[in-house]
Amino acid sequence: MKNYFSSDFRLGVLGGGQLGRMLLTETQKYDVFTVMLDPSKHAPCSEICNEFHCGDLMDYETVYQFGKSVDLLTIEIEHVNIEALKQLEKEGLKVYPQPSVLEIIQNKARQKQFYIENNIPTAPFQVFKIVEDLKSIEFPFVWKSAKFGYDGNGVKMIRHQKDLIGLPDGECIAEELIPFKNELAVIVARNENGEVSTYPVVEMEFHPVANQVEYVICPARIPEAVAQKARQTAMNVAEAYGHIGLLAVEMFQTENDEILINEVAPRTHNSGHYSIEASYTSQFEQHLRAILNLPLGKTESKVAGVMVNLVGAEGYSGVVRYENIEKIMEIEGVTPHIYGKKETRPFRKMGHVTIVNENMEEARRIAELVKKTIVVKSN
Amino acid sequence: MKNYFSSDFRLGVLGGGQLGRMLLTETQKYDVFTVMLDPSKHAPCSEICNEFHCGDLMDYETVYQFGKSVDLLTIEIEHVNIEALKQLEKEGLKVYPQPSVLEIIQNKARQKQFYIENNIPTAPFQVFKIVEDLKSIEFPFVWKSAKFGYDGNGVKMIRHQKDLIGLPDGECIAEELIPFKNELAVIVARNENGEVSTYPVVEMEFHPVANQVEYVICPARIPEAVAQKARQTAMNVAEAYGHIGLLAVEMFQTENDEILINEVAPRTHNSGHYSIEASYTSQFEQHLRAILNLPLGKTESKVAGVMVNLVGAEGYSGVVRYENIEKIMEIEGVTPHIYGKKETRPFRKMGHVTIVNENMEEARRIAELVKKTIVVKSN
Repeated sequence: MKNYFSSDFRLGVLGGGQLGRMLLTETQKYDVFTVMLDPSKHAPCSEICNEFHCGDLMDYETVYQFGKSVDLLTIEIEHVNIEALKQLEKEGLKVYPQPSVLEIIQNKARQKQFYIENNIPTAPFQVFKIVEDLKSIEFPFVWKSAKFGYDGNGVKMIRHQKDLIGLPDGECIAEELIPFKNELAVIVARNENGEVSTYPVVEMEFHPVANQVEYVICPARIPEAVAQKARQTAMNVAEAYGHIGLLAVEMFQTENDEILINEVAPRTHNSGHYSIEASYTSQFEQHLRAILNLPLGKTESKVAGVMVNLVGAEGYSGVVRYENIEKIMEIEGVTPHIYGKKETRPFRKMGHVTIVNENMEEARRIAELVKKTIVVKSN
Repeated sequence: MKNYFSSDFRLGVLGGGQLGRMLLTETQKYDVFTVMLDPSKHAPCSEICNEFHCGDLMDYETVYQFGKSVDLLTIEIEHVNIEALKQLEKEGLKVYPQPSVLEIIQNKARQKQFYIENNIPTAPFQVFKIVEDLKSIEFPFVWKSAKFGYDGNGVKMIRHQKDLIGLPDGECIAEELIPFKNELAVIVARNENGEVSTYPVVEMEFHPVANQVEYVICPARIPEAVAQKARQTAMNVAEAYGHIGLLAVEMFQTENDEILINEVAPRTHNSGHYSIEASYTSQFEQHLRAILNLPLGKTESKVAGVMVNLVGAEGYSGVVRYENIEKIMEIEGVTPHIYGKKETRPFRKMGHVTIVNENMEEARRIAELVKKTIVVKSN
């Protein structure tokens, strides 16, 4: 067993955003020396990691040289240069999650194909190269760019031919629209020893009108049999990938209580933020345990948790100001997390708020109050 | 309401040790820019605070100049230059806890006198200036140096005249030895608005032979009426001081279930470390809320907590190695905290381990297993 604690071991992280920032809480707790690479010199982690490097995550040479300076390499964002990671791995560096897994996940067409090959249920889809060809298939469907989609970018609901106007050419998938009861997610952790653990199922509750995720709720308000199926499916996905680290598996619960894989993120995930306050082991600690091949922590919750994202209000750009943050801090069990971005703009993810309570319905009620109260504005 | 979050507000902290390090988790969560001063350039906080200054905490000019560079000043160690703090306060800087409170607490004779003046029950004592004079009083008693005692330093049980040999001259107190059932502690938080909250009572369980604190247990295994009296007494102490920030109040539960104040620490405290995992609000977050005049958080626990200190094993000095840390991490609900000190020496506080569980007896049982398993050695 390598001794990581207070040693000269160097953990490298590609990306230094909010996910990296919450990971730093854990590397600091264990005194694991952490080196980060991010294209922005004002990245949320720049001042508080042990050693910060500024550089392009998609540049082969930058990623390769960064990798040569560390003892183990992980990511907090999956849009990184895979070729550099493959070369580093070939030269003996441990890269978790593995480059081969990242390569599949980076490309949504390849990722969907992987589920077909591994008998993992997913919505039917077709792959296309140019927008023109999409006119031939039946409406409605969901268009997804094969690469670089995140937070709803690169995804569009296509109901009519006119919805195709303005879509960029390039590899994409057209996915059949499956009616579903719930969007669910399960975070799976897997270490080198092959130890696997799943977090409880969370539910993404959508705004009835805006069709945006408003609340992430743990545990999901679904029957136990459905929850078990979702956890088992997520575990099957992680085993199929042979993935080391954290894997966030997003799923649909269909009208017939089938579980279909939507997509995965090979890292800590927004759907697991509740775990910092609610779980015995936060997802960030679990990621660290997984990549360092330490025993995985207990994934169950101490209390119910609901998470609300803090995004920049429409109409405000510039130096951020959190209006009414002291009001929500008056409420028991409410914890704001501020990501350290100095400037807001509409819909930018600036932080999140976790609400924990022994009673789920109470947590959900408070979450609504929180959402109505705090506003991310600019000065 | 001043907006502290992601703003140009600068929080200054005197001291950059492990308490500061755990506070940084909270300032990072809220994105409060944190500047720290510590005499050691390798202090646990040096690499991870936003801005680090190296300098002598007892030097007037160093502390004064540091204070001029920040918007609010707090401490993580109470042995700091009080005159500089008084001058800064006079010039309009908020210094929490207040210099006048620190001045009383820094001197144990003055502190004991304060309890007498405020009708707060404490063990009878006499003040002396030279060791020679101690020969005149009845044995046994507890000798305490008036200044700079911590972690058992500056405290000695005097049973015979020979125990006086080697004691340094200087102001000290001789305290009557009161038989007690338990050593208890309560952490109180108080903000500028006068809002006050107390944490549940914790119990310090001693090793039956070595007479050292082995476990800090929350909640204390005492009758509810005693717990209420302890919390009320701690609140009375905080109100008497008019203290802003956190105050850790150490108490004796006598054979007759009276509560006597032992001493206080005007800051986050070892007896509150369990709160990181067990409480709705960790003591470090609560300190931040208190000094920034934010609403105080909920102090109750989600689960039972037991804390074990990790101190350097006898016979080992040098580069630290945490033997069997992976073994204790296999146990559910066990979280090690490593303070970031690269070198161990006998009895040096290197970290702590928190054990949380829904069941207190189970947490206590695991704590014993943890204590037997992990050993802090050197390479």
